[in-house]
Amino acid sequence: MTLPAEVAAAVDGRRLGALIRDVSTLGGLPGGGLDRQTLTKPDLDARRLMVDRCCSLGAQPWRDPAGNFFLRWPATASDEPPVATGSHIDSQPGGGTLDGAYGVCAAIEVLAALASTGARLRRPVEAVIWTNEEGCRFAPGTMGSSAFADPSALDEFLAATDGSGATFGEGLAQLDAAFPDVPLRPLGVPLHAFVEAHIEQGTTLEDTANTIGIVERIQGSRWFRFQTRGAASHAGTTPRSRKRDALAAAVEVASALYGLLTEGDDALRLTIGRLEVVPGSVNVVPAAVTFTVDLRHPDTEVLDEVEARLRALARPTAGCDVQVMRTMTMSPSLFHPAVVDAVARGARSVGLPSLRMASGAFHDSLRLIRHCPTGMVFVPSRDGLSHNTAEYTDPDDLVAGARVLAHAVAELAGR
Amino acid sequence: MTLPAEVAAAVDGRRLGALIRDVSTLGGLPGGGLDRQTLTKPDLDARRLMVDRCCSLGAQPWRDPAGNFFLRWPATASDEPPVATGSHIDSQPGGGTLDGAYGVCAAIEVLAALASTGARLRRPVEAVIWTNEEGCRFAPGTMGSSAFADPSALDEFLAATDGSGATFGEGLAQLDAAFPDVPLRPLGVPLHAFVEAHIEQGTTLEDTANTIGIVERIQGSRWFRFQTRGAASHAGTTPRSRKRDALAAAVEVASALYGLLTEGDDALRLTIGRLEVVPGSVNVVPAAVTFTVDLRHPDTEVLDEVEARLRALARPTAGCDVQVMRTMTMSPSLFHPAVVDAVARGARSVGLPSLRMASGAFHDSLRLIRHCPTGMVFVPSRDGLSHNTAEYTDPDDLVAGARVLAHAVAELAGR
Repeated sequence: MTLPAEVAAAVDGRRLGALIRDVSTLGGLPGGGLDRQTLTKPDLDARRLMVDRCCSLGAQPWRDPAGNFFLRWPATASDEPPVATGSHIDSQPGGGTLDGAYGVCAAIEVLAALASTGARLRRPVEAVIWTNEEGCRFAPGTMGSSAFADPSALDEFLAATDGSGATFGEGLAQLDAAFPDVPLRPLGVPLHAFVEAHIEQGTTLEDTANTIGIVERIQGSRWFRFQTRGAASHAGTTPRSRKRDALAAAVEVASALYGLLTEGDDALRLTIGRLEVVPGSVNVVPAAVTFTVDLRHPDTEVLDEVEARLRALARPTAGCDVQVMRTMTMSPSLFHPAVVDAVARGARSVGLPSLRMASGAFHDSLRLIRHCPTGMVFVPSRDGLSHNTAEYTDPDDLVAGARVLAHAVAELAGR
Repeated sequence: MTLPAEVAAAVDGRRLGALIRDVSTLGGLPGGGLDRQTLTKPDLDARRLMVDRCCSLGAQPWRDPAGNFFLRWPATASDEPPVATGSHIDSQPGGGTLDGAYGVCAAIEVLAALASTGARLRRPVEAVIWTNEEGCRFAPGTMGSSAFADPSALDEFLAATDGSGATFGEGLAQLDAAFPDVPLRPLGVPLHAFVEAHIEQGTTLEDTANTIGIVERIQGSRWFRFQTRGAASHAGTTPRSRKRDALAAAVEVASALYGLLTEGDDALRLTIGRLEVVPGSVNVVPAAVTFTVDLRHPDTEVLDEVEARLRALARPTAGCDVQVMRTMTMSPSLFHPAVVDAVARGARSVGLPSLRMASGAFHDSLRLIRHCPTGMVFVPSRDGLSHNTAEYTDPDDLVAGARVLAHAVAELAGR
C-alpha cells in the first residue's frame, strides 16, 4: 500500500463527523444553519476549537497579519515549503454548516490521519483557515487569501467597515487579543502547493451521479450595478403619459436581463440579488432604483458577449435614464495540472466515481493560483443548495472527499 | 358688491405669499422642498407660527385630542356651527412646500381678509390644521380628520409606531406639552360645512388651461401587498433549471401589472412604490420579495375588474409561490352639491377659468364627507409634480385659489 493510500485509509469518518458537528454549534441558528460572519465571537470560538484540536495532535499553530491560521504538521525536511490545505470558517448570515467549514475540518482530519499513521512526509502539511471568504460582513470576500497572495492588498482591507461602522482592522485586533498563544508569521510565506476541499454548491455532481469533483478551473464572474432615474410623483394623480417611474424602467431592464439568461447556454449564470427603490413609499412613484447583476460563465468570450448585450440595455427607458457600471471582475482561472492530477489520482485510488469540472463559485483557491500550484476537490451538495440553512451533503460523501484530499496532500508532500 | 365678493377682494397676495414662505422655512431642506413629518419639531413650530398669526388677527385657537387645531373667527350668531376650512401641514420626507400647507395658509388668509374688511358673518369661520394627513411617519394617513369624523378610531391610532418605535400617542403628548395655552375641546364638534383648498398634484388643470378645479369627487383607492417566495441559493452555482428566484417571479408579476395599466383607461392609476428583496445579497438568489401596489380609479366597477385581474396573477410563477392581499380600501366619494356649487360660484365671481373634476389623491376632506357638507378647490401643480421637492404652483394661481376659497366660505357662513 502506498503512503498516500495509507493516509487516505486512515481518515476516520466518525472523527470527521464529530468535528463538523462540534464546529457547527458555534454560531448555529435555532432552526439549523449558521450565522458565523467573519471575526465575530462564533468565528473566534471556532478558531479556538480548531487550534486546540490540532495542538492535541501535535501540530504547531501560526497566524499572519490577515488573521489567517496555519496548523502545521512537521515533516522530515522541515525547511521545505509546506503543502497547505484548508478553506474558510466564516458563513453568510443565513448560511449552511459546510460552506467553508467542511474544507477546514477535512484538512484537520488529514492531520489526524497523518498522526494516526505516524507517517512522516518530506514536506510539512498545514491546515489553513482563511479569513473573511464570504465578504458579507466586510466586502470584498476572500480578504485573507487575497492578502496572503498579495500582501499589498491588506492596507485597503483594514479600512473596510461593517453595517455598524466597525472596521476589518478592529476585528483583526480582537483576534490578536484572543490568540496571544498563537505566534505571528509574515503574509505570503512560500507554499509547495494548496488544495482545498469544498462542497460543490451546485448540482453537477448530483445530476451526473458522481461523488468527487476534480476541479480544473473556476468560472469567470462579473458584477454590475444598474441605476434607473425618473421623477418622484404622486401615485394617485400622475397620469401614465406623465409618469417617469424608475421601477417600471428597472422591471423592463430586469425582464430583458432574465431573457439573456434563457437564451444563454446552460453554463450561464445571471442573478439580480439586490434591488433598492427610492423613496420607497406606497403612494409615491419611484424616483430611482439601483440593482446588482451577478454574471458568471467559464468562458471569457461568452462573458464579453453577454456584457455587451447587458450594456446595450443602459438606454433611456419608460421616460427614465438608465446607467450601468461594472463593479467587480474575476477572470476564468485554471488550476495547476500537477494538483488537478494529484486530486484525480486520489479519486481513482479510493475507487470513487469522479468528474473533471469547473467551479461555479469563487473560492480562496482562486487567490492562491498566483502564489503556488493550486487545486480543489468537490463533494456533492443536495439540490445544489448553499448560502442557505438547508445546505446538506451525505456524510459518506464528506468522508470520501476527505480521503481524496488526504491522498492528494500526502502525494504532494512526498516521502 | 356682495359680502363674499368683498371678502374675496380683500385677499392679499403679498400677505399670503409671505405666510407660505415663512411656514416653508420650518422643516425646509437645503435643496428646497420640505421634511416636516407629523408631530416632529418643524410641525410643532409651524403650528406655533400659525396660532400666533391668528391670535394677532383676533381669532381664538382650539385643539382636540387628535392634535387638530381650530383657529376660530367670531360670528354674529356664535352658537351656530362654524364653517371650517383648512388642510394639513405635515409633509412627506422629501415633499414640497404646498401639499397641505397651502390649504392652511389660504384658510388663515381668509381670516385675515375677514379681519381687514371687519365683516361679521352669521356663522363662525374656523381655519383648521388636521394632524398626520401624509401617514409616512405613522400609518395610516388622515389620522386627525378620521378621528374628528369618527372619534372611536383614535384609540387604534394612538398605538401606531414610527420607524424608531415612538408612538403617535407619545407624539400627541409632546404637542399637548408645547401648547398649554391652546384650550382643548372634544373631537367631532358639529360643523356647518368644510371646504379645503389644495394643489391638484396632477396635470388636469395644466393640460386644460384652467386655473380653478371645482372638485366634485375623490377617486377610489385600493392598496395591495404581493409576496413571492422561492429559495435562497448560490448565484454562481445554481443552474437555471434549479433556480427558484423570488425576484424573477416578482419582475414577471410586476411586468403583468404594468401591462394592466397600459390596457386600462386614462383614469386608471397603478403604482408599485415599495419593493423589498430578501436576503438582498449580490451573490445570493433572492428567497423572497414583497412589493406594494397602489391602485386608483373613480369607478368602483373598474376597480373591481382590475383587482380581479391583479389577483389572477397570484399563482405559482418561475418556481415560486405568489400571494397577494388587499391592505387598504377607499371607495370613490362624492362631495356635497351645496359646497361644490359654492366653490363654482366663487370661481365664476372672480372670473377665472374653472373645471369640474375628480381628485386623484385622497385628502382630509374625504374623511369630513360623513361629518358635514364638504368640498374642495384645486389650483394647478406644475407638471403635476407632488410628493417631490420640485412641487410648484404659480403665485397668481395660489392667490386666485384663496379668493375662490374666501368667496365660498363667506357665502357658506352667511350674513
